[in-house]
Amino acid sequence: MIFDTLIHNATIVTVNPGFEVIADGIIGIRSGIIEVVGKRSRGPLPKAVEYLDAEGGIALPGLINTHSHLPMSLFRGLADDLPLMTWLTDHIFPAEAGHIAPETIRTGTLLSCAEMLLSGTTCCCDGYFLEDHVAEALNETGMRAVLAQGVIDFPAPGVPDPANNVSAAVDFVQKWQGRSDCITPSIFCHSTWTCSENTLKRAKKAAQDQGVLFQIHISETRSEQAEILGRHKTTPIGYLERIGILDESTLLVHCVWVDEKGIELMARRRSRVSVCTESEMKLASGVAPLPAMLAAGLAVGLGTDGCASNNNLDMFQEMDMTAKLHKVHSLDPTVMNARSVLEAATIQAARAIGLSEVIGSLETGKAADLIIVDTNQPHLVPLYHPVSQVVYAARGADVSDVMVQGRFLVRNRKLVTIDIKGVCAAAHQAARKISGKPG
Amino acid sequence: MIFDTLIHNATIVTVNPGFEVIADGIIGIRSGIIEVVGKRSRGPLPKAVEYLDAEGGIALPGLINTHSHLPMSLFRGLADDLPLMTWLTDHIFPAEAGHIAPETIRTGTLLSCAEMLLSGTTCCCDGYFLEDHVAEALNETGMRAVLAQGVIDFPAPGVPDPANNVSAAVDFVQKWQGRSDCITPSIFCHSTWTCSENTLKRAKKAAQDQGVLFQIHISETRSEQAEILGRHKTTPIGYLERIGILDESTLLVHCVWVDEKGIELMARRRSRVSVCTESEMKLASGVAPLPAMLAAGLAVGLGTDGCASNNNLDMFQEMDMTAKLHKVHSLDPTVMNARSVLEAATIQAARAIGLSEVIGSLETGKAADLIIVDTNQPHLVPLYHPVSQVVYAARGADVSDVMVQGRFLVRNRKLVTIDIKGVCAAAHQAARKISGKPG
Repeated sequence: MIFDTLIHNATIVTVNPGFEVIADGIIGIRSGIIEVVGKRSRGPLPKAVEYLDAEGGIALPGLINTHSHLPMSLFRGLADDLPLMTWLTDHIFPAEAGHIAPETIRTGTLLSCAEMLLSGTTCCCDGYFLEDHVAEALNETGMRAVLAQGVIDFPAPGVPDPANNVSAAVDFVQKWQGRSDCITPSIFCHSTWTCSENTLKRAKKAAQDQGVLFQIHISETRSEQAEILGRHKTTPIGYLERIGILDESTLLVHCVWVDEKGIELMARRRSRVSVCTESEMKLASGVAPLPAMLAAGLAVGLGTDGCASNNNLDMFQEMDMTAKLHKVHSLDPTVMNARSVLEAATIQAARAIGLSEVIGSLETGKAADLIIVDTNQPHLVPLYHPVSQVVYAARGADVSDVMVQGRFLVRNRKLVTIDIKGVCAAAHQAARKISGKPG
Repeated sequence: MIFDTLIHNATIVTVNPGFEVIADGIIGIRSGIIEVVGKRSRGPLPKAVEYLDAEGGIALPGLINTHSHLPMSLFRGLADDLPLMTWLTDHIFPAEAGHIAPETIRTGTLLSCAEMLLSGTTCCCDGYFLEDHVAEALNETGMRAVLAQGVIDFPAPGVPDPANNVSAAVDFVQKWQGRSDCITPSIFCHSTWTCSENTLKRAKKAAQDQGVLFQIHISETRSEQAEILGRHKTTPIGYLERIGILDESTLLVHCVWVDEKGIELMARRRSRVSVCTESEMKLASGVAPLPAMLAAGLAVGLGTDGCASNNNLDMFQEMDMTAKLHKVHSLDPTVMNARSVLEAATIQAARAIGLSEVIGSLETGKAADLIIVDTNQPHLVPLYHPVSQVVYAARGADVSDVMVQGRFLVRNRKLVTIDIKGVCAAAHQAARKISGKPG
């Protein structure tokens, strides 16, 4: 038996149920699947078509970003240090209305994929408008993703008449269902304040009928909390429960302002959660009760949110900041240790987006979605504990190689499937229009 | 007139009093000093011996790390996710007692300098034992620093008899006073709980006599706060005031648990402050009232703290995390905007360590301590606002070139003055001994 690819000379952080770390390990891959992962035995290496010598680096499951708005990389740094509503209504919504079209969707998506791949993210869970164009662009890169057409009760790019918002989402799902190994379609309702109860119910019903993940931003801000309480006499989570949206096929994004009762309810319904630490910090939304949600057994993954409120898509930074924020917030340095944070960016994230059978750990039978961290750099020396090093010292730029479904998409820090010069030139051009500058 | 070096094709973030940002700027340097900084005029470039084309990148004052323990990079990731006292007494103090010696001091210092220079830090303010060996090693690299011999009432590396702790610090100061353009000596008392009142007073008196900066860890934890309150019936800041330590030549490191009255007192005495956001988060010390201290007019700089509690020395990450932490902590996204955070890592930091006449901004007459951020990368595209990009999107790995006192110490991401392979090999060897592993 000859492997397609054999990775050797790596410390393997498997993130398997026993959280095994294997020194001097090998990973044998065939037809996109991990066939062997374990300690190198004596003697020559197993046969393979292609070898990757990790040079003592750390092999990890590819990181999974559970919440993104891929095309928004075009708005990176457009407006910062502003209240959420000013930022959204004075800057982001007008930029979207004026400049989001198939061509900018393509450029922004490829730019985000480039950034994510170069920083070790192999899969993301996305929601935006004109998602069909997101899917076309992302599919070319070879990256894995759950992609959702956004549903909102306002005219949106690609859906000028909101009466068609749910049917447009269903069209998207039907087009992409089973079409690509790496793309899983989904439906994303923007929020309780931009979608009516009827829209929420119809969209959830459509997601159930199609058998796909339903996503929604929920409990992000205190003002949202107050508004729902005033309008429905319950919390945002209580409201979703009342209208039948809280189940194990729903991904609840943010969950900053949820209380114990809400967590209990979410756990009973087995809902999944995406926490976007950096975005929630930068927009001053609040600190999500991540440790409590994990303790309740919820599947909680980390996400970057759109690039405009972060302002990058680096999941290494997301891990580091998540660990540190929860330590200082609870005044307990043992909270969110390196292992739990790495799990939230890998296996827990896979559970959150419904792909834990396929990705999230380096185990026999799973897809070969993996990354190599180059440890031959001053800031990763010395190396006592690989997991601590990954969470607290490494950064996205340390990723040397990235594989999705057995295929290298980054090799020796270079993108394989994306013409990055062309994408950056197009992004700069789009930005000149967005900022109203000539040239 | 011919410049030694001319930097061109850069967006210059000057951090001068008007916080001027200059598109298509040039910087002319002679004899280590900035002679010209401004807009490029029409026609050929001014004459220079050496040109650096920044390729549209961002030129910034070199970042200033106001609190480090350089040799502790050897303990990076040795122990994490532990309470401060367990971490210190069970892991760090034993490792220091068993393994800190001139050779490891040298290795750890060079490793830290390499990491700092590669990530755009041109100056640090350090305190440790055997500081003479820190100074010797750092001086070889060409980096700028305020270096302090540590004072503690226990046997310490190099000072087995604590009766000599202050005199050892004075010896260090006298040896390094005026000896190197880039090294300014200082005295560092570890804390109120490791130094007696008599030691604190004698060390402060010695610093005054020598005309150097006095540094101390203060108000880092709640337990320290409680202990001082019990022992001296006042706050840590009140205690320092009572024993005559609070003045404009004292750098107060941490200041997490200071109240309004403490801030008033510090401002009246014009004391300087170093805030180490990531370390204070990771050790769960608390959130320093940075916005209030800045509002009171205090000179507050950012620092990484020792590498063992961070676990890196990347000041870009420190800026990003500082901005985001204070936004979420205050639930106000306008707090600690990009400008104020960049100032805290440059001109405010220079003020904090007493070097603002020399460094901290790109202005005529100041030392040519500067860095170039390479913006030709997916995660720095597009580019609407250079300062926002530097704080929220860039990371240490984006620094391409680093100059101190007119001399390139990093050129095209490569260290000029440090044999990094040799240093990493020595650091790995030291770590094997520290962790008790053979090899």
